[in-house]
Amino acid sequence: MKAIILFGHGARDSRWREPFDRLATLWRAQHPDTPVELAFLEMMQPSLEEAVTFLAGGGVTQITVVPVFFGQGGHLRNDFPVLLEACKKQLPGVKLSATPAVGEDLAVLQAIVDFGARAL
Amino acid sequence: MKAIILFGHGARDSRWREPFDRLATLWRAQHPDTPVELAFLEMMQPSLEEAVTFLAGGGVTQITVVPVFFGQGGHLRNDFPVLLEACKKQLPGVKLSATPAVGEDLAVLQAIVDFGARAL
Repeated sequence: MKAIILFGHGARDSRWREPFDRLATLWRAQHPDTPVELAFLEMMQPSLEEAVTFLAGGGVTQITVVPVFFGQGGHLRNDFPVLLEACKKQLPGVKLSATPAVGEDLAVLQAIVDFGARAL
Repeated sequence: MKAIILFGHGARDSRWREPFDRLATLWRAQHPDTPVELAFLEMMQPSLEEAVTFLAGGGVTQITVVPVFFGQGGHLRNDFPVLLEACKKQLPGVKLSATPAVGEDLAVLQAIVDFGARAL
């Protein structure tokens, strides 16, 4: 079974995660056959490894990790690959892959432009 | 004249800003009559005040600031309103307003869900 992890930065303020919870709710409504979990780099739970372990425990064998970041800076270029490799070693039975950051997607950028245009 | 500022967090790695530059390029192509500038909270230039001052110098009298953040945590709830107020005091001739974070917009979230679905 395939699953998806939406991977965010995390923040001290618990309200920061609201859009991430909304993303997971949207995903579950539209893709009910593909489990989704959130995971965070820091300051929020679960970690990437915890989310992967949870999904694997439910019979998931293939996970796509989507970094919900705009830019690809140090977190995605340095920290994230290390975390991903650690998960692969920890759970060799799960096929793990990652997409680029969502900020690399033209449709995401276009939605931001349209949001700004509506606000003028 | 109206203008828009796309306000991001900033990062040490200069490549982090690539999606922001792409956003500004998209904006300029699609809304050529409404000037756009980027501004950053920290670690990147220009600051919000620098961007507002630059636009005001070009005859802009009304600016909408769009926070290109997913979640509304401490940066947007605490730091950003202080910066915005400081700009209003500094440039009383410019009408400044701000939208919610782009992560509050359903179309932006939907674009992220669709990006994840295409990657499965």
